[in-house]
Amino acid sequence: MAPVFNVAVFLYPGGDMLDFIGPLEVYTTMPPPGVESQFKTTTFSHKNPVEAAASAVTIIPDASVGEIEANLENYDILLIPGAGPEAIKELLESDDGKKIVDLIKAFSDLKPRQETGHRIVQSVCTGALFLGASGILEGRIVTTHHMCYDLLKDICDKRAGGESKTNIVNKRWSDAGKTNAGVRIVNAGGVSSGLDASLFIKELLTGKESSEWTANIVEHERRDQDAGWKSGLKLG
Amino acid sequence: MAPVFNVAVFLYPGGDMLDFIGPLEVYTTMPPPGVESQFKTTTFSHKNPVEAAASAVTIIPDASVGEIEANLENYDILLIPGAGPEAIKELLESDDGKKIVDLIKAFSDLKPRQETGHRIVQSVCTGALFLGASGILEGRIVTTHHMCYDLLKDICDKRAGGESKTNIVNKRWSDAGKTNAGVRIVNAGGVSSGLDASLFIKELLTGKESSEWTANIVEHERRDQDAGWKSGLKLG
Repeated sequence: MAPVFNVAVFLYPGGDMLDFIGPLEVYTTMPPPGVESQFKTTTFSHKNPVEAAASAVTIIPDASVGEIEANLENYDILLIPGAGPEAIKELLESDDGKKIVDLIKAFSDLKPRQETGHRIVQSVCTGALFLGASGILEGRIVTTHHMCYDLLKDICDKRAGGESKTNIVNKRWSDAGKTNAGVRIVNAGGVSSGLDASLFIKELLTGKESSEWTANIVEHERRDQDAGWKSGLKLG
Repeated sequence: MAPVFNVAVFLYPGGDMLDFIGPLEVYTTMPPPGVESQFKTTTFSHKNPVEAAASAVTIIPDASVGEIEANLENYDILLIPGAGPEAIKELLESDDGKKIVDLIKAFSDLKPRQETGHRIVQSVCTGALFLGASGILEGRIVTTHHMCYDLLKDICDKRAGGESKTNIVNKRWSDAGKTNAGVRIVNAGGVSSGLDASLFIKELLTGKESSEWTANIVEHERRDQDAGWKSGLKLG
């Protein structure tokens, strides 16, 4: 029987909808007739219910942070979506935010999951700021939303207590290598980039036919890893 | 003061997440600093809570169908997302489904909203099947998910009691003209097409700068109305 990959998806107040729905859509897209889905997703949060950005959707998460923490070994993918930088900075200074940073670090120190041979931390957009705060981006080539390169660098350097040697680049997504334990780190660029990063991960775990099928169902024209964002607009 | 456009977003069991989150993301994306958001979105459903496709997110809708019905005149945009064809066919045969079809028809018979001068029915993906069942696609050039062209044609013809003269084409989205009352009909193609159709509508309502800003924040490379889906894959 084909392995089933368990995906834990962090939700928090103000979190960007498309940052987490893009990956959820890719992972849960109905496979071809007769083929079983290979992904089981679980949303989790320290809030219940939790309102996404602009209060546009109110979600009942499937689990609490504590429940995910207690079963961390059972997850193949830990997905950390982004939000407006102010919302993340505020969360990072709270106990709830510190718990998530600790969760990311603990997940990154696990060996690949025995049942599947994989373990991946995936950030989308400014979700990379949480990864930066956990220290796991030190010395890596990473990406985030194009308006937040400097902020991510600051957070990585602050965590390192000096120069983090984190190299932030303009990419659709970055396959940023593995931790010592063997956990792969993948950062998507801004918002819609999560679709392409997730198709990359789906292809890695379940093959090219599966990822192409998904892109076809979603009518999504895939963009390559090196297709950075072209705009030079700056916030504020 | 710039007008605020009210968007009612229909949610139902099995509804495709990206079909409704894509438009919600586009309409609610934070505008440039100092600019007020011009969109207020309200999710509604006959279920509470309501689970999207693959049970990947459980949402508490903002309103019931009855609450939207009672205030229908206050909405500028009625958004109808898609789902797997079986889920829609089942819903269309139920009283809940018939109520939505009636709601679409009633909305299409309203004059443009006095406060804004606009009124738009927007479908995404197989959401067009609900529009077809309401009769408002008769004689129009429309689109839907590339695997459901024949099904949409069947539903339109059945509603018309013969040849509906609905012409279903392969487009990223179709600006399908206005009803006699003056309500514009816009159909997005499959799933991710909802992003481009919503950027088109946002541009129509709030200008090019606003839609370009949004595409930049979302890091979405826009696709044109005539960019149909290229795949020839068929379901089942």
